[in-house]
Amino acid sequence: MITCADRLEAFAVPGLPLVGRGDDVPELVWRALVGAGIAVADGDVLVVTSKLLSRAEGRFVELPRVEPSARAVELGEQVGKDPRAVELILRESSAVSRQAPGVLVVRHRLGFVVANAGIDASNAAPPDAPPGSGPWMLLLPEAPDASAAAIRARVEAESGAHVGVVITDSFGRPFRMGTVGVAIGVSGLPPVWDRRGEPDLFGRVLENTITALADQVAAVADLVAGQAAERRPVVLVRGLRFDPSEQGAGALLRSTKEDLYA
Amino acid sequence: MITCADRLEAFAVPGLPLVGRGDDVPELVWRALVGAGIAVADGDVLVVTSKLLSRAEGRFVELPRVEPSARAVELGEQVGKDPRAVELILRESSAVSRQAPGVLVVRHRLGFVVANAGIDASNAAPPDAPPGSGPWMLLLPEAPDASAAAIRARVEAESGAHVGVVITDSFGRPFRMGTVGVAIGVSGLPPVWDRRGEPDLFGRVLENTITALADQVAAVADLVAGQAAERRPVVLVRGLRFDPSEQGAGALLRSTKEDLYA
Repeated sequence: MITCADRLEAFAVPGLPLVGRGDDVPELVWRALVGAGIAVADGDVLVVTSKLLSRAEGRFVELPRVEPSARAVELGEQVGKDPRAVELILRESSAVSRQAPGVLVVRHRLGFVVANAGIDASNAAPPDAPPGSGPWMLLLPEAPDASAAAIRARVEAESGAHVGVVITDSFGRPFRMGTVGVAIGVSGLPPVWDRRGEPDLFGRVLENTITALADQVAAVADLVAGQAAERRPVVLVRGLRFDPSEQGAGALLRSTKEDLYA
Repeated sequence: MITCADRLEAFAVPGLPLVGRGDDVPELVWRALVGAGIAVADGDVLVVTSKLLSRAEGRFVELPRVEPSARAVELGEQVGKDPRAVELILRESSAVSRQAPGVLVVRHRLGFVVANAGIDASNAAPPDAPPGSGPWMLLLPEAPDASAAAIRARVEAESGAHVGVVITDSFGRPFRMGTVGVAIGVSGLPPVWDRRGEPDLFGRVLENTITALADQVAAVADLVAGQAAERRPVVLVRGLRFDPSEQGAGALLRSTKEDLYA
């Protein structure tokens, strides 16, 4: 059972520090909620940017320390990218989906298709980066579903409420300009909402109505995080009602053989 | 200038009737706002489902009255679809992007890439459909940007507030399961939010940061409309701040030659 109230709200959870390697994210999220006096309720969804987790996991890489493979050098020449950055992209990927000048779209080891393996060069330096070091790159978190589950377990144990947790990143898309928030890790919230079989207004049966629920929740949070994503790394989305789900973000991925654009 | 408050809310505007051919949508939207006691404020975005407009524009087609062309018959055989439905899809499209059993992904005459030209078979009958008529199909609205502008003009004239209007549909996507709300008509709200050049936390310049603002607003509204999209055809999204824009939904479209998946 999934429903949405006729009102949805989304707000930044204040009080998260700038996270560095080794920080305990579930603990920090719970402390921020308590510190802000936010009483978590059934159906609340905590949306956490992947960058917060990447920083806590120490997924920083200093580019000059990367040794590019022969393939990375060749591909870098083809698309006009730093071969060390290409090397990182290839290490994070299972396949190259498309290449063009300045662009490498890959299938990430986590299964989704994303430009540059989601590796970020903005706000990518560790807190203890020596002056003059870098440039730094930040890889996506190791296991976003597991991270979502850990945050959920902590919040549910403390609050007694049934909540969802979504780990997000901003992805570009074929056909359309601009990035949107997408879910790369999910716990508790059903990632997709299958409404096939429900009757429509006139009693016909709805077709083609599987909603990408967790991706839309990620989009809401991306709007709230806005230009200050690093300062608003956790957003609470309130107004959904759902039975707890144990599906991860893989439920949002179309298999390659069912994908007309693979 | 675009910002998001640290709190975003989205709620269904109640009181919209089931719309039929010839209804005055700007008038109905304004009356619903007044009837619900909603005081429209600067930065509010009214999100209206394409289906409401399609119904008001009388975009109903009774399938048995469609005469399929030779090409529609041939394509229908190839993909296993009713040639009359294929005929409607082709009339609404400028090109076929992909075809597969049961699926026709096309470039719509309005520019976007969408399965089955966005033609809907759910809730597609006109209010005055004779018993035993149909099946009915509902085409997308004729000119969603113009419809958005007309609603905006009415609401702004009555309220004195600067608002945005987004006309939405639910689209599937390559790579990912499930549909998401997308903007097919926009007025007032900047469709994309170009943050390139803004400094990041550490003073580096942000790269690759064009946000698909209107698509994310559409996703918020899609969550609120939920399984009752026809009963919640208008959603108000509150919490954004933006200077009025005169760009339409075309700003969200990647040109074919810049699209690696075209």
